[in-house]
Amino acid sequence: MPLYSNVAIVGVGLIGGSIGLALRQRGLAAEVVGIGRRQASLDKALACGAIDRAEVDLAAGVASSDVVIVATPVDSIAATVRQVVTESGDTTLVTDAGSTKAAICAEIDAITPPLSSFVGSHPLAGDHRSGPENARPDLFEGKVVVVTPTGATPSGVVGRAQALWESLGARVMLMSPEQHDQALAATSHLPHLVASALAAATPDQWLPLAATGWADTTRIAAADPELWTQIFSHNKSATIAALDRMVEQLGQLRMSIFSENWQQLQDTLIQAKRTRDALGN
Amino acid sequence: MPLYSNVAIVGVGLIGGSIGLALRQRGLAAEVVGIGRRQASLDKALACGAIDRAEVDLAAGVASSDVVIVATPVDSIAATVRQVVTESGDTTLVTDAGSTKAAICAEIDAITPPLSSFVGSHPLAGDHRSGPENARPDLFEGKVVVVTPTGATPSGVVGRAQALWESLGARVMLMSPEQHDQALAATSHLPHLVASALAAATPDQWLPLAATGWADTTRIAAADPELWTQIFSHNKSATIAALDRMVEQLGQLRMSIFSENWQQLQDTLIQAKRTRDALGN
Repeated sequence: MPLYSNVAIVGVGLIGGSIGLALRQRGLAAEVVGIGRRQASLDKALACGAIDRAEVDLAAGVASSDVVIVATPVDSIAATVRQVVTESGDTTLVTDAGSTKAAICAEIDAITPPLSSFVGSHPLAGDHRSGPENARPDLFEGKVVVVTPTGATPSGVVGRAQALWESLGARVMLMSPEQHDQALAATSHLPHLVASALAAATPDQWLPLAATGWADTTRIAAADPELWTQIFSHNKSATIAALDRMVEQLGQLRMSIFSENWQQLQDTLIQAKRTRDALGN
Repeated sequence: MPLYSNVAIVGVGLIGGSIGLALRQRGLAAEVVGIGRRQASLDKALACGAIDRAEVDLAAGVASSDVVIVATPVDSIAATVRQVVTESGDTTLVTDAGSTKAAICAEIDAITPPLSSFVGSHPLAGDHRSGPENARPDLFEGKVVVVTPTGATPSGVVGRAQALWESLGARVMLMSPEQHDQALAATSHLPHLVASALAAATPDQWLPLAATGWADTTRIAAADPELWTQIFSHNKSATIAALDRMVEQLGQLRMSIFSENWQQLQDTLIQAKRTRDALGN
Protein backbone atom coordinates (compact mmCIF):
# COMPACT_ATOMS: atom_id res chain seq x y z
CA MET A 1 0.00 0.00 0.00
CA PRO A 2 1.50 3.34 -1.01
CA LEU A 3 2.63 5.84 1.64
CA TYR A 4 0.44 8.57 0.11
CA SER A 5 -2.93 8.37 -1.63
CA ASN A 6 -2.45 11.60 -3.57
CA VAL A 7 0.54 13.89 -4.04
CA ALA A 8 0.22 17.10 -6.05
CA ILE A 9 3.20 18.84 -7.61
CA VAL A 10 2.76 22.46 -8.64
CA GLY A 11 5.26 23.16 -11.42
CA VAL A 12 6.52 20.14 -13.32
CA GLY A 13 9.94 21.27 -14.49
CA LEU A 14 13.20 19.47 -13.78
CA ILE A 15 12.65 19.33 -10.00
CA GLY A 16 8.88 18.79 -9.99
CA GLY A 17 9.19 16.20 -12.74
CA SER A 18 11.94 14.36 -10.88
CA ILE A 19 9.83 14.30 -7.69
CA GLY A 20 6.97 12.78 -9.70
CA LEU A 21 9.20 10.17 -11.34
CA ALA A 22 10.70 9.20 -7.97
CA LEU A 23 7.28 8.93 -6.28
CA ARG A 24 5.87 6.82 -9.10
CA GLN A 25 8.86 4.53 -9.62
CA ARG A 26 9.12 3.91 -5.87
CA GLY A 27 5.36 3.22 -5.64
CA LEU A 28 4.98 5.87 -2.94
CA ALA A 29 1.72 7.46 -4.12
CA ALA A 30 -1.51 6.01 -5.47
CA GLU A 31 -1.81 9.12 -7.63
CA VAL A 32 0.60 11.89 -8.60
CA VAL A 33 -1.07 15.03 -9.94
CA GLY A 34 0.91 17.61 -11.91
CA ILE A 35 -0.34 21.16 -11.84
CA GLY A 36 0.88 23.84 -14.21
CA ARG A 37 -0.19 26.76 -16.31
CA ARG A 38 1.18 25.51 -19.59
CA GLN A 39 -0.44 22.45 -21.10
CA ALA A 40 2.74 21.78 -23.11
CA SER A 41 4.80 21.24 -19.95
CA LEU A 42 2.08 19.08 -18.43
CA ASP A 43 1.95 16.99 -21.61
CA LYS A 44 5.72 16.47 -21.46
CA ALA A 45 5.46 15.44 -17.80
CA LEU A 46 2.69 12.97 -18.64
CA ALA A 47 4.68 11.64 -21.61
CA CYS A 48 7.78 10.96 -19.55
CA GLY A 49 5.81 9.27 -16.77
CA ALA A 50 6.39 11.92 -14.11
CA ILE A 51 2.68 12.31 -13.28
CA ASP A 52 -0.55 10.28 -13.48
CA ARG A 53 -2.85 13.24 -14.08
CA ALA A 54 -2.44 16.83 -15.26
CA GLU A 55 -4.42 19.83 -14.05
CA VAL A 56 -4.28 23.45 -15.13
CA ASP A 57 -6.72 24.33 -12.34
CA LEU A 58 -4.91 24.47 -9.01
CA ALA A 59 -8.05 24.04 -6.86
CA ALA A 60 -9.02 20.85 -8.68
CA GLY A 61 -5.45 19.57 -8.51
CA VAL A 62 -4.91 19.89 -4.75
CA ALA A 63 -8.45 19.18 -3.47
CA SER A 64 -7.73 15.64 -2.29
CA SER A 65 -3.96 15.73 -1.73
CA ASP A 66 -2.09 14.40 1.33
CA VAL A 67 0.95 16.33 0.22
CA VAL A 68 1.46 19.32 -2.08
CA ILE A 69 4.95 20.31 -3.26
CA VAL A 70 5.32 23.74 -4.82
CA ALA A 71 8.18 23.51 -7.34
CA THR A 72 7.72 26.79 -9.17
CA PRO A 73 10.28 29.60 -9.67
CA VAL A 74 11.07 31.28 -6.34
CA ASP A 75 9.20 34.52 -7.14
CA SER A 76 5.85 32.73 -7.23
CA ILE A 77 6.28 30.21 -4.38
CA ALA A 78 4.78 32.22 -1.49
CA ALA A 79 1.67 33.26 -3.43
CA THR A 80 1.20 29.72 -4.72
CA VAL A 81 1.52 28.25 -1.21
CA ARG A 82 -1.15 30.68 0.02
CA GLN A 83 -3.48 29.56 -2.77
CA VAL A 84 -2.72 25.86 -2.18
CA VAL A 85 -3.56 26.18 1.52
CA THR A 86 -6.88 27.83 0.69
CA GLU A 87 -7.85 25.03 -1.66
CA SER A 88 -6.56 21.97 0.18
CA GLY A 89 -7.40 20.33 3.49
CA ASP A 90 -6.11 21.42 6.92
CA THR A 91 -4.00 18.29 7.26
CA THR A 92 -2.38 18.52 3.83
CA LEU A 93 1.42 18.83 4.15
CA VAL A 94 2.58 21.73 2.00
CA THR A 95 6.21 22.33 1.19
CA ASP A 96 8.26 23.84 -1.63
CA ALA A 97 11.51 23.21 -3.49
CA GLY A 98 12.82 26.76 -3.83
CA SER A 99 16.54 27.59 -3.93
CA THR A 100 16.09 30.45 -1.45
CA LYS A 101 14.25 30.30 1.82
CA ALA A 102 14.36 33.46 3.99
CA ALA A 103 12.14 35.74 1.87
CA ILE A 104 9.71 32.93 1.01
CA CYS A 105 9.33 31.70 4.59
CA ALA A 106 8.96 35.25 5.95
CA GLU A 107 6.20 35.99 3.45
CA ILE A 108 4.41 32.74 4.33
CA ASP A 109 4.84 33.29 8.10
CA ALA A 110 3.07 36.65 7.68
CA ILE A 111 -0.10 35.04 6.31
CA THR A 112 -3.12 35.22 8.68
CA PRO A 113 -4.50 32.99 9.98
CA PRO A 114 -1.20 31.05 10.31
CA LEU A 115 -0.83 28.02 8.06
CA SER A 116 -1.28 24.72 9.83
CA SER A 117 1.02 22.55 7.73
CA PHE A 118 3.72 24.37 5.77
CA VAL A 119 7.48 24.12 6.06
CA GLY A 120 10.07 25.21 3.49
CA SER A 121 12.38 22.77 1.70
CA HIS A 122 15.28 23.02 -0.70
CA PRO A 123 16.54 19.88 -2.42
CA LEU A 124 20.24 20.40 -3.28
CA ALA A 125 19.88 18.59 -6.55
CA GLY A 126 19.54 19.87 -10.03
CA ASP A 127 21.08 20.22 -13.39
CA HIS A 128 21.99 23.07 -15.71
CA ARG A 129 19.35 21.64 -18.06
CA SER A 130 15.74 22.40 -17.24
CA GLY A 131 12.30 21.00 -18.02
CA PRO A 132 10.52 17.71 -17.27
CA GLU A 133 12.30 16.09 -20.24
CA ASN A 134 15.51 16.19 -18.16
CA ALA A 135 13.84 14.86 -15.00
CA ARG A 136 15.35 11.75 -13.39
CA PRO A 137 13.84 9.45 -10.75
CA ASP A 138 17.22 9.21 -8.96
CA LEU A 139 17.82 12.99 -8.81
CA PHE A 140 17.48 13.08 -5.02
CA GLU A 141 19.22 9.83 -4.12
CA GLY A 142 21.93 10.50 -1.57
CA LYS A 143 21.46 14.25 -1.98
CA VAL A 144 20.84 16.74 0.81
CA VAL A 145 17.45 18.39 1.24
CA VAL A 146 17.45 21.35 3.61
CA VAL A 147 14.18 21.72 5.55
CA THR A 148 13.80 25.15 7.14
CA PRO A 149 11.40 25.41 10.09
CA THR A 150 10.73 28.81 11.65
CA GLY A 151 9.28 29.78 15.02
CA ALA A 152 5.85 29.65 13.37
CA THR A 153 6.17 26.12 11.96
CA PRO A 154 3.52 23.85 13.51
CA SER A 155 4.89 20.82 15.37
CA GLY A 156 4.83 17.57 13.46
CA VAL A 157 5.16 19.25 10.10
CA VAL A 158 8.96 19.06 10.08
CA GLY A 159 8.87 15.30 10.67
CA ARG A 160 6.35 14.80 7.87
CA ALA A 161 8.48 16.84 5.42
CA GLN A 162 11.57 14.91 6.48
CA ALA A 163 9.79 11.59 5.87
CA LEU A 164 8.69 12.80 2.42
CA TRP A 165 12.19 13.68 1.24
CA GLU A 166 13.72 10.58 2.81
CA SER A 167 11.18 8.45 0.95
CA LEU A 168 12.72 9.86 -2.27
CA GLY A 169 16.22 8.80 -1.14
CA ALA A 170 17.46 12.14 0.18
CA ARG A 171 19.17 13.07 3.46
CA VAL A 172 17.51 15.89 5.37
CA MET A 173 19.32 18.73 7.16
CA LEU A 174 17.41 21.19 9.35
CA MET A 175 18.41 24.86 9.30
CA SER A 176 16.69 28.19 9.77
CA PRO A 177 15.75 29.94 6.50
CA GLU A 178 18.38 32.62 7.21
CA GLN A 179 21.17 30.09 7.88
CA HIS A 180 20.18 28.30 4.68
CA ASP A 181 20.46 31.46 2.61
CA GLN A 182 23.86 32.35 4.11
CA ALA A 183 25.24 28.91 3.37
CA LEU A 184 23.75 28.61 -0.10
CA ALA A 185 25.08 32.05 -1.03
CA ALA A 186 28.55 30.52 -0.64
CA THR A 187 27.93 27.03 -2.04
CA SER A 188 25.47 27.73 -4.86
CA HIS A 189 24.68 31.37 -5.60
CA LEU A 190 28.30 32.55 -5.66
CA PRO A 191 29.44 29.64 -7.90
CA HIS A 192 26.71 30.64 -10.34
CA LEU A 193 27.89 34.26 -10.47
CA VAL A 194 31.50 33.10 -10.82
CA ALA A 195 30.69 30.71 -13.68
CA SER A 196 28.71 33.43 -15.46
CA ALA A 197 31.39 36.08 -14.94
CA LEU A 198 34.06 33.71 -16.23
CA ALA A 199 32.05 32.91 -19.36
CA ALA A 200 31.29 36.60 -19.90
CA ALA A 201 34.96 37.54 -19.37
CA THR A 202 36.19 35.16 -22.07
CA PRO A 203 36.77 36.94 -25.42
CA ASP A 204 34.88 35.15 -28.21
CA GLN A 205 37.95 34.72 -30.41
CA TRP A 206 39.63 32.57 -27.77
CA LEU A 207 36.75 30.17 -27.21
CA PRO A 208 38.23 27.58 -29.63
CA LEU A 209 41.03 27.29 -27.04
CA ALA A 210 38.65 26.47 -24.18
CA ALA A 211 39.16 22.93 -22.90
CA THR A 212 37.71 20.81 -20.08
CA GLY A 213 38.88 23.19 -17.33
CA TRP A 214 36.93 26.09 -18.79
CA ALA A 215 33.98 23.82 -19.57
CA ASP A 216 33.74 22.53 -15.99
CA THR A 217 34.22 25.93 -14.39
CA THR A 218 31.53 27.61 -16.52
CA ARG A 219 29.02 24.72 -16.81
CA ILE A 220 26.32 26.20 -14.55
CA ALA A 221 26.35 29.45 -16.53
CA ALA A 222 24.10 27.51 -18.94
CA ALA A 223 21.24 27.45 -16.41
CA ASP A 224 18.07 29.52 -16.83
CA PRO A 225 18.91 33.27 -16.48
CA GLU A 226 15.37 34.21 -15.41
CA LEU A 227 15.21 31.65 -12.58
CA TRP A 228 18.65 32.69 -11.36
CA THR A 229 17.85 36.40 -11.46
CA GLN A 230 14.95 35.64 -9.11
CA ILE A 231 17.28 33.68 -6.81
CA PHE A 232 19.75 36.58 -6.57
CA SER A 233 16.92 39.02 -5.90
CA HIS A 234 15.79 36.79 -2.98
CA ASN A 235 19.26 36.53 -1.46
CA LYS A 236 20.82 39.87 -2.15
CA SER A 237 22.87 40.62 0.98
CA ALA A 238 24.30 37.13 1.54
CA THR A 239 25.22 36.88 -2.15
CA ILE A 240 27.03 40.22 -2.03
CA ALA A 241 28.91 39.15 1.11
CA ALA A 242 29.99 35.91 -0.61
CA LEU A 243 30.98 37.85 -3.73
CA ASP A 244 33.12 40.18 -1.64
CA ARG A 245 34.93 37.20 -0.05
CA MET A 246 35.58 35.85 -3.55
CA VAL A 247 36.95 39.14 -4.89
CA GLU A 248 39.18 39.43 -1.82
CA GLN A 249 40.49 35.91 -2.45
CA LEU A 250 41.16 36.75 -6.11
CA GLY A 251 42.93 39.91 -4.95
CA GLN A 252 45.24 37.85 -2.74
CA LEU A 253 46.01 35.51 -5.64
CA ARG A 254 46.71 38.54 -7.84
CA MET A 255 49.06 39.97 -5.25
CA SER A 256 50.96 36.65 -4.97
CA ILE A 257 51.40 36.57 -8.75
CA PHE A 258 52.19 40.26 -9.13
CA SER A 259 54.82 40.17 -6.37
CA GLU A 260 56.13 36.80 -7.61
CA ASN A 261 55.55 35.27 -4.20
CA TRP A 262 55.31 31.77 -5.68
CA GLN A 263 55.44 30.01 -2.32
CA GLN A 264 52.43 31.99 -1.11
CA LEU A 265 50.57 31.26 -4.35
CA GLN A 266 51.32 27.55 -4.05
CA ASP A 267 50.16 27.55 -0.41
CA THR A 268 46.80 29.02 -1.47
CA LEU A 269 46.46 26.48 -4.27
CA ILE A 270 47.27 23.69 -1.78
CA GLN A 271 44.60 24.95 0.62
CA ALA A 272 42.06 25.17 -2.21
CA LYS A 273 42.93 21.66 -3.38
CA ARG A 274 42.46 20.35 0.17
CA THR A 275 38.98 21.91 0.33
CA ARG A 276 38.09 20.56 -3.11
CA ASP A 277 39.47 17.08 -2.44
CA ALA A 278 37.36 16.89 0.74
CA LEU A 279 34.23 16.85 -1.43
CA GLY A 280 35.30 14.11 -3.84
CA ASN A 281 34.63 14.14 -7.53
CA MET B 1 54.77 -0.39 -41.14
CA PRO B 2 54.69 2.16 -38.31
CA LEU B 3 55.05 5.88 -39.03
CA TYR B 4 57.97 6.14 -36.56
CA SER B 5 60.69 3.67 -35.67
CA ASN B 6 61.36 5.18 -32.25
CA VAL B 7 59.56 7.86 -30.23
CA ALA B 8 60.94 9.01 -26.88
CA ILE B 9 58.77 10.69 -24.24
CA VAL B 10 60.55 12.60 -21.50
CA GLY B 11 58.24 12.64 -18.49
CA VAL B 12 55.61 9.93 -18.36
CA GLY B 13 52.84 11.56 -16.32
CA LEU B 14 49.26 11.96 -17.47
CA ILE B 15 50.17 13.66 -20.75
CA GLY B 16 53.34 11.71 -21.55
CA GLY B 17 51.65 8.45 -20.61
CA SER B 18 48.63 9.23 -22.78
CA ILE B 19 50.90 10.04 -25.75
CA GLY B 20 52.60 6.67 -25.27
CA LEU B 21 49.30 4.80 -25.01
CA ALA B 22 47.96 6.52 -28.14
CA LEU B 23 51.15 5.81 -30.14
CA ARG B 24 51.18 2.16 -29.12
CA GLN B 25 47.47 1.44 -29.52
CA ARG B 26 47.46 3.10 -32.94
CA GLY B 27 50.59 1.17 -34.01
CA LEU B 28 52.37 4.41 -34.87
CA ALA B 29 55.81 3.61 -33.46
CA ALA B 30 57.95 0.47 -33.55
CA GLU B 31 59.23 1.46 -30.11
CA VAL B 32 58.10 3.98 -27.50
CA VAL B 33 60.74 4.86 -24.93
CA GLY B 34 59.78 6.50 -21.64
CA ILE B 35 62.41 8.64 -19.94
CA GLY B 36 62.12 9.83 -16.38
CA ARG B 37 64.03 10.40 -13.21
CA ARG B 38 61.85 8.28 -10.95
CA GLN B 39 61.87 4.54 -11.56
CA ALA B 40 58.46 4.30 -9.82
CA SER B 41 56.76 6.47 -12.48
CA LEU B 42 58.51 4.56 -15.26
CA ASP B 43 57.37 1.26 -13.75
CA LYS B 44 53.78 2.52 -13.66
CA ALA B 45 54.04 3.64 -17.29
CA LEU B 46 55.40 0.21 -18.29
CA ALA B 47 52.68 -1.54 -16.28
CA CYS B 48 49.84 0.37 -17.95
CA GLY B 49 51.28 -0.20 -21.42
CA ALA B 50 52.20 3.41 -22.13
CA ILE B 51 55.82 2.62 -23.11
CA ASP B 52 57.84 -0.31 -24.45
CA ARG B 53 61.07 0.57 -22.67
CA ALA B 54 62.04 2.74 -19.69
CA GLU B 55 65.24 4.78 -19.37
CA VAL B 56 66.49 6.92 -16.50
CA ASP B 57 69.42 8.04 -18.68
CA LEU B 58 68.24 10.69 -21.13
CA ALA B 59 71.16 10.23 -23.56
CA ALA B 60 70.49 6.50 -23.90
CA GLY B 61 66.75 7.15 -24.25
CA VAL B 62 66.88 9.62 -27.14
CA ALA B 63 69.95 8.32 -29.05
CA SER B 64 67.97 6.67 -31.84
CA SER B 65 64.66 8.58 -31.76
CA ASP B 66 62.82 10.02 -34.78
CA VAL B 67 60.75 12.11 -32.41
CA VAL B 68 61.24 13.28 -28.82
CA ILE B 69 58.36 14.82 -26.85
CA VAL B 70 59.27 16.65 -23.65
CA ALA B 71 56.28 16.31 -21.31
CA THR B 72 57.83 17.54 -18.07
CA PRO B 73 56.62 20.40 -15.81
CA VAL B 74 57.03 23.75 -17.57
CA ASP B 75 59.96 24.92 -15.42
CA SER B 76 62.22 22.17 -16.74
CA ILE B 77 61.17 22.04 -20.40
CA ALA B 78 63.70 24.46 -21.94
CA ALA B 79 66.70 22.88 -20.19
CA THR B 80 65.47 19.40 -21.07
CA VAL B 81 65.02 20.34 -24.74
CA ARG B 82 68.58 21.67 -24.82
CA GLN B 83 69.86 18.38 -23.42
CA VAL B 84 67.72 16.30 -25.79
CA VAL B 85 69.07 18.18 -28.80
CA THR B 86 72.65 17.58 -27.68
CA GLU B 87 72.05 13.84 -27.34
CA SER B 88 69.83 13.13 -30.35
CA GLY B 89 70.34 13.33 -34.10
CA ASP B 90 70.08 16.52 -36.22
CA THR B 91 66.91 15.29 -37.89
CA THR B 92 65.10 14.29 -34.68
CA LEU B 93 61.87 16.25 -34.30
CA VAL B 94 61.76 17.71 -30.79
CA THR B 95 58.63 19.21 -29.30
CA ASP B 96 57.06 19.65 -25.88
CA ALA B 97 53.63 19.54 -24.23
CA GLY B 98 53.90 22.51 -21.88
CA SER B 99 50.88 24.61 -20.85
CA THR B 100 52.79 27.85 -21.42
CA LYS B 101 54.81 28.75 -24.49
CA ALA B 102 56.29 32.27 -24.59
CA ALA B 103 58.96 31.88 -21.89
CA ILE B 104 59.88 28.36 -22.99
CA CYS B 105 60.16 29.20 -26.70
CA ALA B 106 62.14 32.40 -25.99
CA GLU B 107 64.62 30.47 -23.86
CA ILE B 108 64.99 27.82 -26.56
CA ASP B 109 65.31 30.41 -29.37
CA ALA B 110 68.25 31.93 -27.44
CA ILE B 111 70.25 28.70 -27.57
CA THR B 112 73.34 28.83 -29.85
CA PRO B 113 73.80 27.33 -32.31
CA PRO B 114 70.07 27.46 -33.20
CA LEU B 115 68.21 24.18 -32.91
CA SER B 116 67.48 22.50 -36.22
CA SER B 117 64.24 20.76 -35.34
CA PHE B 118 62.30 22.17 -32.37
CA VAL B 119 58.85 23.68 -32.25
CA GLY B 120 56.67 24.17 -29.19
CA SER B 121 53.33 22.37 -28.69
CA HIS B 122 50.51 22.47 -26.16
CA PRO B 123 47.86 19.76 -26.26
CA LEU B 124 44.63 21.20 -24.79
CA ALA B 125 43.78 17.97 -23.08
CA GLY B 126 44.18 16.90 -19.53
CA ASP B 127 42.52 15.98 -16.35
CA HIS B 128 42.58 17.19 -12.75
CA ARG B 129 44.07 13.79 -11.91
CA SER B 130 47.76 13.32 -12.66
CA GLY B 131 50.16 10.43 -13.20
CA PRO B 132 50.50 7.68 -15.83
CA GLU B 133 47.84 5.63 -14.01
CA ASN B 134 45.25 8.13 -15.26
CA ALA B 135 46.61 8.18 -18.84
CA ARG B 136 44.15 7.39 -21.65
CA PRO B 137 44.89 6.50 -25.29
CA ASP B 138 41.99 8.69 -26.47
CA LEU B 139 43.02 11.78 -24.47
CA PHE B 140 43.87 13.75 -27.63
CA GLU B 141 41.06 12.56 -29.90
CA GLY B 142 39.20 15.56 -31.30
CA LYS B 143 41.16 17.89 -28.99
CA VAL B 144 43.09 20.97 -30.08
CA VAL B 145 46.89 21.00 -29.99
CA VAL B 146 48.42 24.45 -30.37
CA VAL B 147 51.76 24.41 -32.23
CA THR B 148 53.73 27.64 -31.75
CA PRO B 149 56.37 28.41 -34.40
CA THR B 150 58.58 31.49 -33.95
CA GLY B 151 60.72 33.42 -36.44
CA ALA B 152 63.53 30.99 -35.57
CA THR B 153 61.59 27.78 -36.25
CA PRO B 154 63.23 25.85 -39.12
CA SER B 155 61.01 25.20 -42.12
CA GLY B 156 59.47 21.76 -42.30
CA VAL B 157 59.41 21.31 -38.53
CA VAL B 158 55.91 22.72 -38.12
CA GLY B 159 54.52 20.26 -40.65
CA ARG B 160 56.21 17.35 -38.90
CA ALA B 161 54.84 18.39 -35.49
CA GLN B 162 51.39 18.83 -37.00
CA ALA B 163 51.53 15.33 -38.51
CA LEU B 164 52.60 13.90 -35.12
CA TRP B 165 49.65 15.37 -33.22
CA GLU B 166 47.18 14.58 -35.99
CA SER B 167 48.35 10.96 -35.92
CA LEU B 168 47.14 10.92 -32.28
CA GLY B 169 43.70 12.18 -33.33
CA ALA B 170 44.15 15.86 -32.47
CA ARG B 171 43.41 19.02 -34.48
CA VAL B 172 46.32 21.43 -34.79
CA MET B 173 46.11 25.23 -34.52
CA LEU B 174 49.13 27.41 -35.25
CA MET B 175 49.75 30.48 -33.12
CA SER B 176 52.74 32.47 -31.94
CA PRO B 177 53.89 31.60 -28.39
CA GLU B 178 52.73 35.04 -27.21
CA GLN B 179 49.26 34.71 -28.76
CA HIS B 180 49.00 31.27 -27.19
CA ASP B 181 49.79 32.59 -23.72
CA GLN B 182 47.30 35.46 -24.04
CA ALA B 183 44.53 33.10 -25.09
CA LEU B 184 45.30 30.39 -22.55
CA ALA B 185 45.42 32.97 -19.76
CA ALA B 186 41.70 33.49 -20.44
CA THR B 187 40.64 29.93 -21.24
CA SER B 188 42.77 27.91 -18.83
CA HIS B 189 44.89 29.85 -16.36
CA LEU B 190 42.12 32.19 -15.20
CA PRO B 191 39.60 29.32 -14.74
CA HIS B 192 42.16 27.61 -12.54
CA LEU B 193 42.58 30.69 -10.33
CA VAL B 194 38.81 31.15 -10.18
CA ALA B 195 38.19 27.53 -9.20
CA SER B 196 40.86 27.74 -6.51
CA ALA B 197 39.62 31.07 -5.18
CA LEU B 198 36.06 29.75 -5.02
CA ALA B 199 37.14 26.65 -3.11
CA ALA B 200 39.30 28.76 -0.78
CA ALA B 201 36.44 31.26 -0.24
CA THR B 202 33.99 28.57 0.90
CA PRO B 203 33.78 28.32 4.70
CA ASP B 204 34.38 24.72 5.81
CA GLN B 205 31.18 24.49 7.82
CA TRP B 206 29.09 25.04 4.69
CA LEU B 207 30.76 22.37 2.55
CA PRO B 208 28.03 19.81 3.37
CA LEU B 209 25.73 22.14 1.41
CA ALA B 210 27.90 22.09 -1.71
CA ALA B 211 26.13 20.40 -4.61
CA THR B 212 26.94 19.76 -8.28
CA GLY B 213 27.23 23.47 -9.14
CA TRP B 214 30.00 24.00 -6.60
CA ALA B 215 31.60 20.68 -7.57
CA ASP B 216 31.75 21.55 -11.28
CA THR B 217 32.93 25.10 -10.73
CA THR B 218 35.78 24.08 -8.40
CA ARG B 219 36.79 20.76 -10.02
CA ILE B 220 40.13 21.93 -11.46
CA ALA B 221 41.20 23.27 -8.05
CA ALA B 222 42.11 19.61 -7.39
CA ALA B 223 44.98 19.73 -9.90
CA ASP B 224 48.65 19.71 -8.85
CA PRO B 225 49.50 23.00 -7.02
CA GLU B 226 53.21 22.80 -7.87
CA LEU B 227 52.65 22.38 -11.62
CA TRP B 228 50.15 25.24 -11.63
CA THR B 229 52.39 27.57 -9.66
CA GLN B 230 54.99 27.08 -12.40
CA ILE B 231 52.39 27.83 -15.07
CA PHE B 232 51.39 31.12 -13.40
CA SER B 233 55.04 32.09 -13.01
CA HIS B 234 55.50 31.56 -16.78
CA ASN B 235 52.46 33.62 -17.75
CA LYS B 236 52.36 36.35 -15.17
CA SER B 237 51.22 39.41 -17.11
CA ALA B 238 48.56 37.74 -19.27
CA THR B 239 47.16 35.98 -16.21
CA ILE B 240 46.94 39.25 -14.28
CA ALA B 241 45.19 40.92 -17.23
CA ALA B 242 42.66 38.06 -17.39
CA LEU B 243 42.17 38.23 -13.62
CA ASP B 244 41.47 41.96 -13.84
CA ARG B 245 38.82 41.36 -16.54
CA MET B 246 37.22 38.76 -14.25
CA VAL B 247 37.18 41.03 -11.20
CA GLU B 248 35.69 43.82 -13.32
CA GLN B 249 32.97 41.44 -14.51
CA LEU B 250 32.24 40.37 -10.91
CA GLY B 251 32.11 44.04 -9.95
CA GLN B 252 29.46 44.68 -12.62
CA LEU B 253 27.42 41.73 -11.36
CA ARG B 254 27.77 43.06 -7.81
CA MET B 255 26.57 46.49 -8.92
CA SER B 256 23.53 44.99 -10.67
CA ILE B 257 22.59 43.07 -7.51
CA PHE B 258 23.38 45.91 -5.11
CA SER B 259 21.33 48.41 -7.11
CA GLU B 260 18.60 45.82 -7.73
CA ASN B 261 18.93 46.29 -11.46
CA TRP B 262 17.50 42.84 -12.15
CA GLN B 263 17.08 43.41 -15.87
CA GLN B 264 20.77 44.26 -16.21
CA LEU B 265 21.71 41.21 -14.13
CA GLN B 266 19.56 38.96 -16.28
CA ASP B 267 21.06 40.43 -19.47
CA THR B 268 24.56 39.55 -18.22
CA LEU B 269 23.43 36.02 -17.30
CA ILE B 270 21.90 35.66 -20.77
CA GLN B 271 25.12 36.76 -22.44
CA ALA B 272 27.13 34.36 -20.28
CA LYS B 273 24.74 31.51 -21.08
CA ARG B 274 25.08 32.25 -24.80
CA THR B 275 28.88 32.05 -24.54
CA ARG B 276 28.67 28.84 -22.50
CA ASP B 277 26.07 27.21 -24.77
CA ALA B 278 28.30 27.91 -27.79
CA LEU B 279 30.82 25.41 -26.40
CA GLY B 280 28.40 22.55 -25.73
CA ASN B 281 28.56 20.32 -22.70
